[in-house]
Amino acid sequence: MAKDKKMVEAITSMDVDFAQWYTDVVKKAELCDYASVKGCMVIKPAGYAIWENIQNELDRRFKETGVQNVYMPLFIPEGLLEKEKDHVEGFAPEVAWVTHGGLEPLQERLCVRPTSETLFCDFYAKDIHSYRDLPRVYNQWCSVVRWEKTTRPFLRSREFLWQGGHTAHATAEEAEERTIQMLNVYADFCEQVLAIPVIKGQKTEKEKFAGAESTYTIEALMHDGKALQSGTSHNFGDGFAKAFGVQFADKDNSLKYVHQTSWGMTTRLIGAIIMVHGDDNGLVLPPRIAPTQVIVIPVQQQKEGVLDKANELFNRLSNFRVKVDDTDKSPGWKFSECEMRGIPLRVEIGPKDMANNQAVLVRRDTHEKTIISLDQLETAVADMLETIQSDMLERARAHREAHTFSAATWEAFTELVNNKPGFVKAMWCGEQACEDKIKEETGATSRCMPFDQEHLADTCVCCGKAAKKMVYWGKAY
Amino acid sequence: MAKDKKMVEAITSMDVDFAQWYTDVVKKAELCDYASVKGCMVIKPAGYAIWENIQNELDRRFKETGVQNVYMPLFIPEGLLEKEKDHVEGFAPEVAWVTHGGLEPLQERLCVRPTSETLFCDFYAKDIHSYRDLPRVYNQWCSVVRWEKTTRPFLRSREFLWQGGHTAHATAEEAEERTIQMLNVYADFCEQVLAIPVIKGQKTEKEKFAGAESTYTIEALMHDGKALQSGTSHNFGDGFAKAFGVQFADKDNSLKYVHQTSWGMTTRLIGAIIMVHGDDNGLVLPPRIAPTQVIVIPVQQQKEGVLDKANELFNRLSNFRVKVDDTDKSPGWKFSECEMRGIPLRVEIGPKDMANNQAVLVRRDTHEKTIISLDQLETAVADMLETIQSDMLERARAHREAHTFSAATWEAFTELVNNKPGFVKAMWCGEQACEDKIKEETGATSRCMPFDQEHLADTCVCCGKAAKKMVYWGKAY
Repeated sequence: MAKDKKMVEAITSMDVDFAQWYTDVVKKAELCDYASVKGCMVIKPAGYAIWENIQNELDRRFKETGVQNVYMPLFIPEGLLEKEKDHVEGFAPEVAWVTHGGLEPLQERLCVRPTSETLFCDFYAKDIHSYRDLPRVYNQWCSVVRWEKTTRPFLRSREFLWQGGHTAHATAEEAEERTIQMLNVYADFCEQVLAIPVIKGQKTEKEKFAGAESTYTIEALMHDGKALQSGTSHNFGDGFAKAFGVQFADKDNSLKYVHQTSWGMTTRLIGAIIMVHGDDNGLVLPPRIAPTQVIVIPVQQQKEGVLDKANELFNRLSNFRVKVDDTDKSPGWKFSECEMRGIPLRVEIGPKDMANNQAVLVRRDTHEKTIISLDQLETAVADMLETIQSDMLERARAHREAHTFSAATWEAFTELVNNKPGFVKAMWCGEQACEDKIKEETGATSRCMPFDQEHLADTCVCCGKAAKKMVYWGKAY
Repeated sequence: MAKDKKMVEAITSMDVDFAQWYTDVVKKAELCDYASVKGCMVIKPAGYAIWENIQNELDRRFKETGVQNVYMPLFIPEGLLEKEKDHVEGFAPEVAWVTHGGLEPLQERLCVRPTSETLFCDFYAKDIHSYRDLPRVYNQWCSVVRWEKTTRPFLRSREFLWQGGHTAHATAEEAEERTIQMLNVYADFCEQVLAIPVIKGQKTEKEKFAGAESTYTIEALMHDGKALQSGTSHNFGDGFAKAFGVQFADKDNSLKYVHQTSWGMTTRLIGAIIMVHGDDNGLVLPPRIAPTQVIVIPVQQQKEGVLDKANELFNRLSNFRVKVDDTDKSPGWKFSECEMRGIPLRVEIGPKDMANNQAVLVRRDTHEKTIISLDQLETAVADMLETIQSDMLERARAHREAHTFSAATWEAFTELVNNKPGFVKAMWCGEQACEDKIKEETGATSRCMPFDQEHLADTCVCCGKAAKKMVYWGKAY
C-alpha cells in the first residue's frame, strides 16, 4: 500500500503550496516538460492530446460561423511590425529577432511572430479589392513567441500554441458583431467543454491589446482565487487598415478602409483546466475534453476470466474514448495513476463483480463509487459522464461565486484584496490613475468591465469621484 | 463567352512553359501567395484546406500504428545542433539564427528548427530510463525553416509545414521495421489518397539525410518528367543516441543506446498534386483529398424552381463534401471557376434536366459528361467519384510507365536524360564519383535504389566497373 501511494504522495498539497502543487501536477500527469531553451515547453502526449481536443472542438465551432483556416509566415520584417505605432510599442520589447539566414547577415531583421496582425494586414492590402471580397474571416493555428522574463508551463511561456483569428469587414458594425460573436464562442466553449465558467467583459484602456480600439475578454477564477485571462477578442476599427492601406471599393465605387478584428485562445487553457478542476490526487479532466474518458481496471486479474471480462467491457464501451489497463501493476497503483492523469471515470471489474453481474464505477471528481448492473453498462457510463461534466461546471461556478466579493469603500476593497483570494467587484471612475494606484498598493488589476454591470455605489472605490463602470478586480496569472 | 474564357486563358499552357503554368495554377486556384519575407508563403484557404485533409488522413494512419503527437520547441540552441557532427554540417549552412530576445542579445544563438532530431534526442535523453519506456513513437505537426537560395511555392520554400516523426527503440531491428513501416504508410497514402504512384527505395550515401545510417524515399514523377521526392524515412541506428547519450536499462539491467528513426512529409505534397494531375484548365484534385468533391451548378437559374432544385440536390449530397454555386455569375464562368479549382465532379441542373428528371454530371479529370436519372443521384455521384479516383491513379501510373526508360550504356543514358523527360533506370557501381559525374554532365541525380531491383546489365552505366545496384536517375525538383 505504501508503494501504491508513493505516486500521489509526490504531489504537494494545493493548500500547502499552490504553485508547487501546479508544477507537480504538470510533471506527474506528464503534460509537459522543460526544454533546453529557457521558457520553452516540450508538450508531451498527455498534454498534446488535450490540445488536440481543444483544437477539434474550437475549429468545428469556428467553421460553423464561416471561419476559413490559412497559414501566415513565421517571420515579420522589422519594417512591417513598425507600421502600426501602438502595436510595435506593445510588442517590440518582447520579440525574438532573426538576424542571420544561413551564413549571411540579413539586410532587414525579422521578428518571430508574437501575433500576426501585421502579416494579415500586409496580405489583405494586396488581396482585398472590392466589397465582394468581404468579409474575410481567416484563422490560423500555429505557435507564437514572446520573450517573457518569468515563465511557467502553459501559463506563460516564451513559445506557446494558439489560434489567431483575423478578419476584415466592410462596416464598423459588422466588425463589432464578429468581435462579440467570437467572444461568445470562446465563453460557450469554456463552459460547455472545459466546464470553466467565465466572466465576459471589456478590458480597460490600460489593459487592452496593443493597437486595438477595444478588447473583450473572458476571465476565469482559478482554485487559488487568482484570475486567468482565458481568451480575448479585439476590435481594431480601421486603425490597422489605415496604417497598412487596406481599402476596398464599396458598392457605390467609393474607396473605404476595412474594419478588422482578431481573437485568440492558447495552450494556457490547459493551465486553466489544471487550476480550476485539479485536486491533491492530480489532474481532473472534464469528460468532453479528456483524451481518455473511461478506463477499465481489472481487479485480481490473475483470476480466471477477469482479463477477458475487462476486455469485453472495453469493447462494449468503444463509443467512448476508453482504455483498459491490463498491465501487471497492482490495482492500487493503477487507481493512483488514472487519478493522477485525471481520467473522469474508472470501471473496476473483479471476480466478485463478475459473480454479481456488476461493475464498480468510480468518479474522478468526487471519488464516489457506484455499483451498476452490467446490463446497464453503456447507459450508466454515458449518464455518469454527463453528470460529471455538469457537476464540474457547477462546482467551479459555486467556487467562483463563493470567491467573488463586492466593495464600496477603499477600506473594504483593500481588506478583501489582501485577505480574500478571488474577484472583487467595485466601481471605477474610468481613470488610469486609479488602476495604477490599485495595482501598486494591492497587486490587483482590472480584469474586465463585465457586460453584466451592477450599480454597487455612486463613486469610484479608489478616488471617490463619480463612478462610470463596475469592474472585476483581482490578482491574476 | 469571351469573358467566361478569360479566367482559363490566364493560365499558360503547360506544354508551352511548365514552370509558368505551375505558377499560374498556384495563383489562379488561390492556393497560396507570396509573403513579404522572401521565400515564405501565405497559404490561402483553398491550399490550406488541402493540407488539412492531408493532415487528417495521415494523422489517422499514424495513430493506427501507435503514433502519439507531441510538440517540441521552435528553437534549438547552437550547442545542441552541434552535438551530431554530420547533422550540423548538413543543416548549419541553411538555418535562420535568432540572436536577440527582446532588447537583449542572447548568450547563445538559437536556430529556428530546420528539423527536430536534436530536440527529440535532448528530450529522450532525460525521458527514457528503462526498456519499459520503449518504444517512443512520437510525431509533431509544425513548420520548419531552411534558408533556401531559390524558392518556389510549395516545392521549395524557406518555411514549410510538415510532420516529423521521431522514434526510439530498444533494438536495431525494431528501428528498421518502423522506418520501413512509415515509408509504406507514406506510399499507400500517396497512391490511395493522392492518386500519385511512387517508387519506393533507398537513397545513396550521397543523397541520404544528414546524420542518418540509411534514408528511404518515395519518388514520384511529375507531368513534365521531373522527379519529386515526396516523403522520406530515416534510420539513425544508434548514432544520435551516442552523440546525445540516450540510454536505457534493458531487461538484464545492462545500459544500452536506443535506436532511432525519423520520417516526414511536407506541404510540397500540394505541389505534387498540382504537377501530377493538373491540366491547362487548372488544378485537378483527386476526390479523396478534395476539400470540395462535388459542386452543384444551376443552369438558367432565373427560371422558376431551378435554384430550389439545385439546393435540393445539394441537400441530397450532404454525405459528400458538396457546395452549390448559386451566385449571379454566368454558368460558363462558374464552370471555368470550378475547373480552375479542381473540383472533381460538377452536377449541372437546368429546366430541361428538371423536365426529364435528370442531371448532367461532368468529370473534372476527363471533361466527360454523363446524364443520370435523379433517382440515382447519390449512387451515381458516389460511383463517379470512385471511378475518378482510380482513373486518376491509373493515368498517373501510365504516364510514369511511359516516361520510365532503361539504359545500359553511357551513350544511351545521356541520350535519354538529355532528350526524354522521365526516370532512367541504370546500373551503378556504388561509387559517389559516378553520381557526381552523372550530375555534372547531365543534371540528373540518383533518385533511389528501388526495393524492386532489376538486373539491367553487369556494369555501371558511368564507369563500366562491376555494378552493385540498379538506380532510378532523373532530374528533380
